Amino acid sequence: MFEKKMRLDALYEFYGKMLTDKQSEIMDLFCNMDYSLGEISELHGVSRQAIHDTIKRTEKVLENYELQLGLYQRFEEKQKAFEIIMTLIDQFETSRDDQVIKEIKRIVTKEIE
Amino acid sequence: MFEKKMRLDALYEFYGKMLTDKQSEIMDLFCNMDYSLGEISELHGVSRQAIHDTIKRTEKVLENYELQLGLYQRFEEKQKAFEIIMTLIDQFETSRDDQVIKEIKRIVTKEIE
Repeated sequence: MFEKKMRLDALYEFYGKMLTDKQSEIMDLFCNMDYSLGEISELHGVSRQAIHDTIKRTEKVLENYELQLGLYQRFEEKQKAFEIIMTLIDQFETSRDDQVIKEIKRIVTKEIE
Repeated sequence: MFEKKMRLDALYEFYGKMLTDKQSEIMDLFCNMDYSLGEISELHGVSRQAIHDTIKRTEKVLENYELQLGLYQRFEEKQKAFEIIMTLIDQFETSRDDQVIKEIKRIVTKEIE
């Protein structure tokens, strides 16, 4: 559940500009401001179900952009590379093992070629 | 001119999936297969000017996606960080200066936070 929300937040951050104003307004409250469905429905004067449906439909739109473009996945892979480099730097600082530097170099080379 | 083509190639790689089949077909020949306008016009049996116009229009479509989403720029910034890390790793290998490791750590921290 938490991971699903994290993914939705990320997809909204990536592709949110492609949404309609109405979709954007609701997603902004839900993703960026962490409003609950109940709070958004009160604010908009519509049923909780209506907000739920809008969010579900918008999620499909965003997932469809990702299916087409795959840019979030690409970005995620870059982020993972940075995280691995960070772990390796920490390792190097304690071990002073030159093999660790070589491994960092291998990862960075793969990213920039 | 060369940089302009490089950018177009990159934008096509990023947002090409959003184009129509006809636009994609021409851009694929122009960007991925490096066909000239003349060669594409011969292949499609239309004037060189018609191909030129299609490419210009498609470039605007792609630039518009980038203007909205800015994902290519974001990606480019990540790539630059990797390139700087590579230079620093090379520096460290010759200098063995711990300050260089600290600088790498600073850059990576900025990327993952």
